[in-house]
Amino acid sequence: MTSGAGPGLRRALTRQPSAYLVASLRGVGQVDLQAQPLTGALILAALWAAGWQVGLFATLGTLIATATAYALDVDRGSIGQGLQGYSGCLTGIALVGSLGHHPATYVLTVVGCAVTTVLTATLATLLAPYRLTPLTAPFCLVSGVMVLGAPSFARIWHGAPAPVANPTSGDTGITFSDLWHAFFTNVSQVFLVNSWYVGLIMLAGLACAGLRVLLAAALGSVAGIVAAWALGAPTAQISSGIYGYNAVLVGIALGAVFLAATPWNAGYALFGAALSTGLTAAITSLFTPFDGHTFTWPFILTTWALLAAVPQLPRLRAATARGPSPHPRPRPEEGTHR
Amino acid sequence: MTSGAGPGLRRALTRQPSAYLVASLRGVGQVDLQAQPLTGALILAALWAAGWQVGLFATLGTLIATATAYALDVDRGSIGQGLQGYSGCLTGIALVGSLGHHPATYVLTVVGCAVTTVLTATLATLLAPYRLTPLTAPFCLVSGVMVLGAPSFARIWHGAPAPVANPTSGDTGITFSDLWHAFFTNVSQVFLVNSWYVGLIMLAGLACAGLRVLLAAALGSVAGIVAAWALGAPTAQISSGIYGYNAVLVGIALGAVFLAATPWNAGYALFGAALSTGLTAAITSLFTPFDGHTFTWPFILTTWALLAAVPQLPRLRAATARGPSPHPRPRPEEGTHR
Amino acid sequence: MTSGAGPGLRRALTRQPSAYLVASLRGVGQVDLQAQPLTGALILAALWAAGWQVGLFATLGTLIATATAYALDVDRGSIGQGLQGYSGCLTGIALVGSLGHHPATYVLTVVGCAVTTVLTATLATLLAPYRLTPLTAPFCLVSGVMVLGAPSFARIWHGAPAPVANPTSGDTGITFSDLWHAFFTNVSQVFLVNSWYVGLIMLAGLACAGLRVLLAAALGSVAGIVAAWALGAPTAQISSGIYGYNAVLVGIALGAVFLAATPWNAGYALFGAALSTGLTAAITSLFTPFDGHTFTWPFILTTWALLAAVPQLPRLRAATARGPSPHPRPRPEEGTHR
Repeated sequence: MTSGAGPGLRRALTRQPSAYLVASLRGVGQVDLQAQPLTGALILAALWAAGWQVGLFATLGTLIATATAYALDVDRGSIGQGLQGYSGCLTGIALVGSLGHHPATYVLTVVGCAVTTVLTATLATLLAPYRLTPLTAPFCLVSGVMVLGAPSFARIWHGAPAPVANPTSGDTGITFSDLWHAFFTNVSQVFLVNSWYVGLIMLAGLACAGLRVLLAAALGSVAGIVAAWALGAPTAQISSGIYGYNAVLVGIALGAVFLAATPWNAGYALFGAALSTGLTAAITSLFTPFDGHTFTWPFILTTWALLAAVPQLPRLRAATARGPSPHPRPRPEEGTHR
Repeated sequence: MTSGAGPGLRRALTRQPSAYLVASLRGVGQVDLQAQPLTGALILAALWAAGWQVGLFATLGTLIATATAYALDVDRGSIGQGLQGYSGCLTGIALVGSLGHHPATYVLTVVGCAVTTVLTATLATLLAPYRLTPLTAPFCLVSGVMVLGAPSFARIWHGAPAPVANPTSGDTGITFSDLWHAFFTNVSQVFLVNSWYVGLIMLAGLACAGLRVLLAAALGSVAGIVAAWALGAPTAQISSGIYGYNAVLVGIALGAVFLAATPWNAGYALFGAALSTGLTAAITSLFTPFDGHTFTWPFILTTWALLAAVPQLPRLRAATARGPSPHPRPRPEEGTHR
Repeated sequence: MTSGAGPGLRRALTRQPSAYLVASLRGVGQVDLQAQPLTGALILAALWAAGWQVGLFATLGTLIATATAYALDVDRGSIGQGLQGYSGCLTGIALVGSLGHHPATYVLTVVGCAVTTVLTATLATLLAPYRLTPLTAPFCLVSGVMVLGAPSFARIWHGAPAPVANPTSGDTGITFSDLWHAFFTNVSQVFLVNSWYVGLIMLAGLACAGLRVLLAAALGSVAGIVAAWALGAPTAQISSGIYGYNAVLVGIALGAVFLAATPWNAGYALFGAALSTGLTAAITSLFTPFDGHTFTWPFILTTWALLAAVPQLPRLRAATARGPSPHPRPRPEEGTHR
């Protein structure tokens, strides 16, 4: 808004440091589409519990992306809701995981997370005619481009990363231990972490956002497991959460954020969660020739497609600003509706 | 439109069973962009003549997709014109051809054809700003994703399907027998069937839709053959219709449905039919690393690109609702203009 | 605008031959987003200096694409600014380079360059809601499809073309000679030419368009070199301009054409130039399985993404019709703003 030499960032950091930190905390929670600072705090704690590198780069990524938004004078309401930070959070985690812990990775994290803020603005423009929001697409685009281009560059590439899980073959027998591991790792894999107790802490964070959010995430996770089992996916992939993290996100997005609370909508959300599980296999195969990473594309594509269909399907209903949600949410223009 | 518990489908099936069946019959004809029930009936007969599996899955697919549209309360005018069924028709055929005749294929056909109805709504929203229509893209998306993802899943994958025809090498000498086979199989390959007499019956169905439709389909087929021969495509691929089915569809779409009947438009339609033939080779090469299937993407992309250009090219003119077409067509908002 | 039998092209060629030639000359310059005939003339001279095949096919391509626009009655203002010819210019160069100098290549150049004019119209429609312009995307689409499809066709394929430069491995030490070669070949590689003195002549042409254009191109080239060196790209690729031509185009587009002249915008343009360098590696890897060609996709994608973000980022400002540019430019509706 200011047209001066560029004090937006400096003013934000010096006069409102706490606003900056709260916005960043909300940003961590917005990866799961939740703006509550307590949700963000519990998820951040879970990320540090997963390892100091994951915790550090998630923190740095969120702070950098949010600071970039201040510097470029993005709408303060959007920043305040954490909507400028979540893609940075995931990008930081993806870069340290793909490129390893090197000085160059810090530089790339700064550049990459700044770019997520620009791409969030790009997608806001491109999706506006359809009333869709960017979701985690800025993260997928930046991380995908960086992982794809990195091996061409001697100064940032230090050998192949850990091999990506290959969800295309293996045993299909399943035990109770596999099932409950899958239920929780589906939640942690949203943040590229394979750990049931990290998922458990995150689920506690989602519970702080309200019963409906908790239910949507849990039922999404179950729908992902059931779909993957029914299709005959390898058990090892199911129990490590590879087939279910997109279902968790679809469950939250369609079940608790973007649609009204009706029985048809609930069925539609569960159907979408199951679809995203099948789509995970297709997208993983599609990206295989490029050593590609599936990231959260199945969630994004499923949610965009199903939300764009709603205006043509009168049986379903989008959430209104003051909808029947069991917990108070900010109005769309305030930002939860990414 | 009703806001009740969900009786749309039940009411449609119990109170208007004949409307449901006519809408489904029109749906089969809408694969070729024609709403006449007689056209749909002849094409359906041709599909059963091609084999009971093809006929059965085409019928099931159309019925399921149309029923899904009733259940989700899609606009009745659109359903009545068959515009909710044609992608299901093709999806059923593609799934039984790719996955084989197994119990799992029936389940996937139900899910896949329901998803085509949702994606038809999605694309209607996304394409509305450009006044374009979904064409057969919902079919290509659903079938493409399913064929790509299927090998990852033990319960739905029963070994490799018949190898996809490889239109990239072979003899280029051509005989009269090759030519007339190509002319008719170009029409049948729209439905993934390689059989000249199936194409002949379908052409008879198109003749019932009017002389202009028949001419457009026939000239599209000829343009595809001429273009493929001139480029030097392998004769075996030309005579089995691989290079011409997209040209047939482009011929009908641009020559008889979406553009007015002027000499420049006719030339543009033939040019588009030839372009789609060249594009077929490029898209087939593009999909090769993914064991991909070209389906009707060349038709869709060519038609979208050429139609979107029309408003900038005053030499060409879009069809008006009450245009100079030689046979009566419903107004666009009633649905023939997918 | 005329509704007669089709005299647009004939009238243009017989009554206004000089207008047709000037429009084509501007078309050559519009590859670098400049409408000045003198700029176009110097660039055309540089292309003939690069070799008679390059010069001939650049000339033919521009003439064909511009003539197609007359024939299809495209807006005369747009034709007059050269906005219908630049994609044909690049397509002609790309086709003779990829397919070799054969009779079939002439035929494909006629068809391909006519299609670029249609696709320019297509993209004008599709991008209008976002106030973006087609840039060189019609060239990339047509040339990409033709290069991808060509090996399938016996009559147009005469063996593999010269191997595409592989920018993914090699030494990273750099000398002063490498640096100044890179600076100029970055400019010539916009036209797929690897020659420092061709780049020098082109830069002289850009100087004729004004100091700001020259500075933007030069700083874009420097940003590309610095980014490629910092990332650790192979020196051989840097000095042959593979990593910098997109940066030159981004520099001109964001630094001198589409954005106002402010310090923040200048920084944004340089940041974009560096980004396009990194993106070049990712897109080259992406296209590798298809023997694909990167062409100017990194420029196009970077420029579209960064321009679409501007409305959401109040720190940055789009250029106005009568902006602070140091040299007179036509108003957007007259066409420099592709």
